[in-house]
Amino acid sequence: MKFEVNVLGCGSAKPSPIHNPSCTVVNFRENLFMIDCGEGAQKELQRQRLKLPRLNHIFLTHLHGDHVFGLPGLLGTMALSGLEGDITIHTFEDGKKILSSIFDYFNRGLPIDVKFNVIRPEEAVVFENDSLRVRTVPLRHKIPAVGYVFEEKPGLRHINREMCDFHQVPMWAFNRIKAGEDFVKDDGSVVANALLTKDPSKPRSYAHISDTSYIPDLAEKIKGVDLLFHETTYLTPDKDKAKERGHSTAAEAARVALDANVGRLLVGHYSSRYKDDTLFLDEALSVFPNVILGKEGLRISV
Amino acid sequence: MKFEVNVLGCGSAKPSPIHNPSCTVVNFRENLFMIDCGEGAQKELQRQRLKLPRLNHIFLTHLHGDHVFGLPGLLGTMALSGLEGDITIHTFEDGKKILSSIFDYFNRGLPIDVKFNVIRPEEAVVFENDSLRVRTVPLRHKIPAVGYVFEEKPGLRHINREMCDFHQVPMWAFNRIKAGEDFVKDDGSVVANALLTKDPSKPRSYAHISDTSYIPDLAEKIKGVDLLFHETTYLTPDKDKAKERGHSTAAEAARVALDANVGRLLVGHYSSRYKDDTLFLDEALSVFPNVILGKEGLRISV
Repeated sequence: MKFEVNVLGCGSAKPSPIHNPSCTVVNFRENLFMIDCGEGAQKELQRQRLKLPRLNHIFLTHLHGDHVFGLPGLLGTMALSGLEGDITIHTFEDGKKILSSIFDYFNRGLPIDVKFNVIRPEEAVVFENDSLRVRTVPLRHKIPAVGYVFEEKPGLRHINREMCDFHQVPMWAFNRIKAGEDFVKDDGSVVANALLTKDPSKPRSYAHISDTSYIPDLAEKIKGVDLLFHETTYLTPDKDKAKERGHSTAAEAARVALDANVGRLLVGHYSSRYKDDTLFLDEALSVFPNVILGKEGLRISV
Repeated sequence: MKFEVNVLGCGSAKPSPIHNPSCTVVNFRENLFMIDCGEGAQKELQRQRLKLPRLNHIFLTHLHGDHVFGLPGLLGTMALSGLEGDITIHTFEDGKKILSSIFDYFNRGLPIDVKFNVIRPEEAVVFENDSLRVRTVPLRHKIPAVGYVFEEKPGLRHINREMCDFHQVPMWAFNRIKAGEDFVKDDGSVVANALLTKDPSKPRSYAHISDTSYIPDLAEKIKGVDLLFHETTYLTPDKDKAKERGHSTAAEAARVALDANVGRLLVGHYSSRYKDDTLFLDEALSVFPNVILGKEGLRISV
């Protein structure tokens, strides 16, 4: 079942001719979850054919403009498009205050219900349904900031059709057996669930880490995720600048990927001072072998 | 001397794949004056190589998001670019309130001084220097709205070099003569200014009218401008919708151009419901002969 990460903006605060400010959309089973909403996000959604009616949650990492300024326009457009559902913005108390004052003024009378889920810069589960859990990890930036980890929940066990036929398990019992129950025959004998099923698919996970300076023990908190986005605003020669401004180098991001033993590392949030993005790829590859160079329009299956 | 109109966005509220929301930049003698600032304006400025340090005035027509949501990002970028000057935003009292709360939060500590010139939905001069005057004209929209008229002031008279030589006018007297003074010879005799000079170039003017429903007597207030931008959100078959929503059809805009006897009409602010912009051109041309179809990237000499 679908679990994809779409890159809508992988530039940083100063705009660049080729990159948008921060925006990422996770498509989990055709439900869209947006992480950050930089200026121009709504146009990029349209360009990438990501459908507004499927978007009900926006997760903000922190309250710098390049992660937020696309929100008022996006919500205005949702309202103008006649979408009457609600949308939940996950952000700090401050974000709730300033964003609701903007929406109250500009979206007055529009038929959209904007809800806020107030989060804190600490570890917590901030969203959960039957198949997905989203949790925060605190980051180290100039203002409070969090990353988000999207974790698929373990699925049902798979029916072993041959064994079920052999033990004459009727179809109506399949749902219970998928859920892990043993099967009790008419004669009272019990067939163990392990005989009738195979292990479910391995749950998948995605961690989104932006913006932060290098945090050595972050790796523990995102151990083994299949895909890690970690910001790479700078290259190693500007390492001091990165630290001073609450950002990471490509090598530091790759170090986190290595320590966390992730499947793949996605890089982005490039400073506009560098004219060649492949420098980020090269630097990260010198530390970790499996790196994807972030780019607007990229769609990655987790 | 330069007097150009640059089209940065000629879409309307719902975003379209081909148009940006409203933004126009008047380049008057290398000083940039922005009218409205829809989302994405800063990226379009960059694309059109219009230089931020030359921008010191932003005129807002009204407080709908598609005319405003590019402002926070633009000002953030100006600050990040180390521009330390000030910028004046001309807007209603409400705009001052809501925009300053946004800037105060997101641009805290950034070295840019945002000033507000509070305007009202009535006729008034809102900016003036030695060579330019900008005045407002009230419009008819769902919320208070104004258009802006940019009027070049009459220049100095041109020296008639032959006649000045004939009357032995010294160079040091030229500035006074350009300003209209007669020349008094050593013997006390007076040479009339009209003999020594030619008329100055005709002052040029640009009127920017967005958003509004059709106002029959608007023509009186913008009589004879060289270039008129008048919004054309709808086409005649949707005339009732235009009226209901405070907008104009292409034919109505052309009617204003005709009645005001303007030089050229620039159309734009197209509803995204129409897929072919040339329909606006055709409709306007059926009423007024000199029409320019607005398009991002267009630069028109007034």
